[in-house]
Amino acid sequence: MELLERTISNEGKILDGDILKVDGFLNHRMDVDLLCKLGEEFYRLFADCGVNKILTIEASGIGIACLTAQFFHCPVLFAKKSKSSNVGSDLLVSRLHSYTHNSDHDVIVSKRYLDEKDCVLIIDDFLANGSALNALIDLCGQAGATVVGAGVAIEKAYQGGGDLIRSMGVRVEALARVASMSVADGIRFC
Amino acid sequence: MELLERTISNEGKILDGDILKVDGFLNHRMDVDLLCKLGEEFYRLFADCGVNKILTIEASGIGIACLTAQFFHCPVLFAKKSKSSNVGSDLLVSRLHSYTHNSDHDVIVSKRYLDEKDCVLIIDDFLANGSALNALIDLCGQAGATVVGAGVAIEKAYQGGGDLIRSMGVRVEALARVASMSVADGIRFC
Repeated sequence: MELLERTISNEGKILDGDILKVDGFLNHRMDVDLLCKLGEEFYRLFADCGVNKILTIEASGIGIACLTAQFFHCPVLFAKKSKSSNVGSDLLVSRLHSYTHNSDHDVIVSKRYLDEKDCVLIIDDFLANGSALNALIDLCGQAGATVVGAGVAIEKAYQGGGDLIRSMGVRVEALARVASMSVADGIRFC
Repeated sequence: MELLERTISNEGKILDGDILKVDGFLNHRMDVDLLCKLGEEFYRLFADCGVNKILTIEASGIGIACLTAQFFHCPVLFAKKSKSSNVGSDLLVSRLHSYTHNSDHDVIVSKRYLDEKDCVLIIDDFLANGSALNALIDLCGQAGATVVGAGVAIEKAYQGGGDLIRSMGVRVEALARVASMSVADGIRFC
């Protein structure tokens, strides 16, 4: 998606540790008008798939998931990263490693809100090694829900997470795919 | 707002510990069509206030903040509850106590994205003792930003947080105000 690639090129910053910092429009300050356009594009891509639920993970996936869901007129379920005291006991749990925070989390959803009648589109802001997406797909599998695909704003294609998920037979649509990036040469898209 | 009150009455659950569980439509599974209507109502209430930024706090405020922001065509900034490794060093920090998780957090935003030119509407899902709202107002004060008001979906009016914030001179609009609740008598609205 040309608009997103241009925004990444203009406003993204490459930091040491292979970090693409896009907190000016995607995951701290959120450019809601831009995210609406991403949501519309996800709708165009998955409109005929029978989606009746969007699944994402807190925190930075929630905004783009909600702005996408309004086109589908379906609810959003967001997976939580830690057990809060009032989430209830009837949970589906998966495990993921966060490279950003260098820690492991349980990823949880309530069994009440994900089941075999669900036709799920997974939405997230970033796809790098694929661990978050993998955990969300695992939760759907535990629930017996159908995953129609995953839509991510930015895929760091060179990290292989997208290829891994696609090799599992899951359709993955990324609106910007980074082929390579470095401070010296900037960002190249696929 | 009658629609929200009816949804709370029909789908909310009262749990021990004075907990109003609304995770079926507000803060786990999110009824996006409903949240859009709440966003439209916040827009009606604050449309003439010159809002150029919406501030919220992760995680459950983000969805309603984004769905509200699209009516204002302004960005959303969400405060984070813990310092992540790539958030940068140039931060505004406030402190809050979470009664839900019984723990203290730093609440942070980047100085780059909040400053004295900002005319801020604060949006959150819940207002009980007011600690989250208070921390967000404090961040705006540190930045020199103007707070035009706060919009919350549900206020537990009997807990006094809303009165406290209003007594500071901040306009607070709650779309449903719970006057009292108990397992025996159910929920009464103001």
